[in-house]
Amino acid sequence: MHFRLLLTVSCFLALPAVAAPKNIIYMIGDGMGPAYLTAYRYYLNQGERPVQQTIFDQLLVGASSTYPDDDTLVTDSAAGATALATGVKSFNGAISVNRQHIPIGTMMQLAKRLGKANGIVASSQVNHATPAAFVAHNVHRRNYEAIADMYLDYRINGQPVADVILGGGTSYFIRDDRNLVAEFKQQGYQYADNWQDLNQLTTKPALALLDQIGLPAALNSEHPSQLATLTQKALELLSPAEKGFVLMVEGSQIDWCGHDNDIACAMAEMHDFAKAVAVAKAYVDANPDTLLVITADHETGGMSLGADGKYLWLPEVVRGVKATGRRIADEMNAADSEQAALARWQALTGVNITDEEQQQLLAARGKEQKDLRDVAVRLVAKYSYTGWTTGGHTGADVPVMAYGKYSEAFRGFMDNTDIAKQLIRYISTNQTPKASE
Amino acid sequence: MHFRLLLTVSCFLALPAVAAPKNIIYMIGDGMGPAYLTAYRYYLNQGERPVQQTIFDQLLVGASSTYPDDDTLVTDSAAGATALATGVKSFNGAISVNRQHIPIGTMMQLAKRLGKANGIVASSQVNHATPAAFVAHNVHRRNYEAIADMYLDYRINGQPVADVILGGGTSYFIRDDRNLVAEFKQQGYQYADNWQDLNQLTTKPALALLDQIGLPAALNSEHPSQLATLTQKALELLSPAEKGFVLMVEGSQIDWCGHDNDIACAMAEMHDFAKAVAVAKAYVDANPDTLLVITADHETGGMSLGADGKYLWLPEVVRGVKATGRRIADEMNAADSEQAALARWQALTGVNITDEEQQQLLAARGKEQKDLRDVAVRLVAKYSYTGWTTGGHTGADVPVMAYGKYSEAFRGFMDNTDIAKQLIRYISTNQTPKASE
Repeated sequence: MHFRLLLTVSCFLALPAVAAPKNIIYMIGDGMGPAYLTAYRYYLNQGERPVQQTIFDQLLVGASSTYPDDDTLVTDSAAGATALATGVKSFNGAISVNRQHIPIGTMMQLAKRLGKANGIVASSQVNHATPAAFVAHNVHRRNYEAIADMYLDYRINGQPVADVILGGGTSYFIRDDRNLVAEFKQQGYQYADNWQDLNQLTTKPALALLDQIGLPAALNSEHPSQLATLTQKALELLSPAEKGFVLMVEGSQIDWCGHDNDIACAMAEMHDFAKAVAVAKAYVDANPDTLLVITADHETGGMSLGADGKYLWLPEVVRGVKATGRRIADEMNAADSEQAALARWQALTGVNITDEEQQQLLAARGKEQKDLRDVAVRLVAKYSYTGWTTGGHTGADVPVMAYGKYSEAFRGFMDNTDIAKQLIRYISTNQTPKASE
Repeated sequence: MHFRLLLTVSCFLALPAVAAPKNIIYMIGDGMGPAYLTAYRYYLNQGERPVQQTIFDQLLVGASSTYPDDDTLVTDSAAGATALATGVKSFNGAISVNRQHIPIGTMMQLAKRLGKANGIVASSQVNHATPAAFVAHNVHRRNYEAIADMYLDYRINGQPVADVILGGGTSYFIRDDRNLVAEFKQQGYQYADNWQDLNQLTTKPALALLDQIGLPAALNSEHPSQLATLTQKALELLSPAEKGFVLMVEGSQIDWCGHDNDIACAMAEMHDFAKAVAVAKAYVDANPDTLLVITADHETGGMSLGADGKYLWLPEVVRGVKATGRRIADEMNAADSEQAALARWQALTGVNITDEEQQQLLAARGKEQKDLRDVAVRLVAKYSYTGWTTGGHTGADVPVMAYGKYSEAFRGFMDNTDIAKQLIRYISTNQTPKASE
């Protein structure tokens, strides 16, 4: 694998030299298809005209195709992240390995090899598909423990790949068979496992695992700017790096809300992600030698503003929903009477439903969380006129935003691999890998 | 109205002077939301990798919001076209009048007033909502006859607004109560009512009405490049204009297919529109003092590549469908036996369906065309994994493409009114309206 990676690096270096930014911030809204940007704009708007632009609108430069190297045109997050991290398409499920299962060098590995600092931030577990494809290699995204092991065991210049790792996933890093956190500490990593201690991370290398699996959904979270907080911390830790840095930030759970067809959940995740983008944009403004690129790996849910023949989409209904469908289901299931359950519905959603719809909710109580959740999100979709075509992904092109140094390279339509190739070109510019490594 | 229009013109002229292209070609794919561009790319692709870019991909520069000035965020084609033709938002149904029903000056009227040539091309009737908003004013798009009358009666510099009018709509122009075609001829317009005679249009002003209402659907048409042919003819007629021209070309029926949730129909219309775009792009290449801008008025149908949890979209199924759902229904209804009807299904779609699905088709025979059509397009959607959320429009942002002189002004995210305002700025630059007119 070492030999192959060197080959990949020298392949990168064969690209023509270009002027390059010192620092790169690469942000991925998982599942953030084009309609999510539109919906988020109207979700923020309270009826003022003209409708104000969002931070995404301000930075929009184009769109990207997302098809994988597979027998389908619709990618999963693993193949999508592999393309975005390596510039090479692969099969659905692949974590930076190609169809022959050979590891493909990632831009974070390249940055590390070239003496740049790097980091990953995610609102999922840090070893989930998207961040994993920047750091590790595996034939299947679900091999969470093997992927977590590789975060420590895969070495470049004698060190783990990522200098800064912030997100969720304690359960994969502290296991009965192995305590990766203890081993990271032995490697010199500062560590935090709660939001209070996050402030005590003062220098890289650093690891923060703030939840067992993913962070709480933004809509349910007590930390309404959780991704922005982590992005700020990562930038603080990476900023002193003499040769610059590459930071990947994922708004991981936009996709999870999309899979649930839960529009209120999705809009809260978009808001969390937008606040993180604002942190990154402010960093670029203060550090003009930085490039910010934002995109998505795919669209989730086939979401539309308007459904069933109605020329309406009602963001006020979405804004009135105060919990994810999962939490609504949990609270309604936990209520000690049908009346109390319906009171929870009303308090958490503000959506007035018919007697028949109340009966549908009650009939789904006491079963799987999913049964009640599905009824709940279907009702929110109905009253907000939100359309969904699938609980999975769709093949739509995704938006591309870029800002800062050399951001003009991302204008227009590109393939997802071309985004990565351009970033890799920037990372490798004016850098000489040591052949002896 | 004359006074108001002059006011509007002087308002335009108060805008700061900018360098401007001589000619403008403005193309509108009605209903062409972002997923339509993605779908069209894969529809053209026969499995080669990497997937080749379409002409839309090559020209993509950004996206546009489409919300109307109404109590909804989802526009219809009339309000969308009003915004795109005047730079002013209005209510759904409005043909270039504002909420107070006051006419709003359009860019075609401005061009005419300033001595530029202008033309409209559509695959719908030429007095349908989108072209109508460039030429006429009405409080409701459905007032087709009044709108057609205004194509002749609304005069600027003593002449009808549009120099070149090509599309469908004979039934609105030759009526029992009035023969507008005869009157257009009296005004010096050359006229063609069939494809053979189109060649005999040699100079502007010129009118061609090639069908009673809209042109045939591209998928059913004997003229597989009908919009490209009309675009070429319009450019021939307008090209000699000394002060340049403004041409609007609408791919009208992408939207109609979307309303039917008919993906094969939609892809054929996209192909027809793409060929017209290629004609326009070639014109820009040969005449570099020309600006080409392409966008859509809204998305139709909430269309997605992938549905019902499957990570698949199968363009080969779409390519195999040889007629619109309407024609499939008509032919199956006309067949003289159930067996013959199912044979028509197989011949026209190539889609192998279950016995139960065959029974669904047969059960819908002999009723309204819509009943059988709905079953037919639902089956094509199912086997191609195409998702639809509505028979109406959705609020998604739409793509913006631009090419040629000063096309950089359209980069990034804009509102639909800003596209029009920029074009109006270009049209009014370095032109002096005669105050005495």
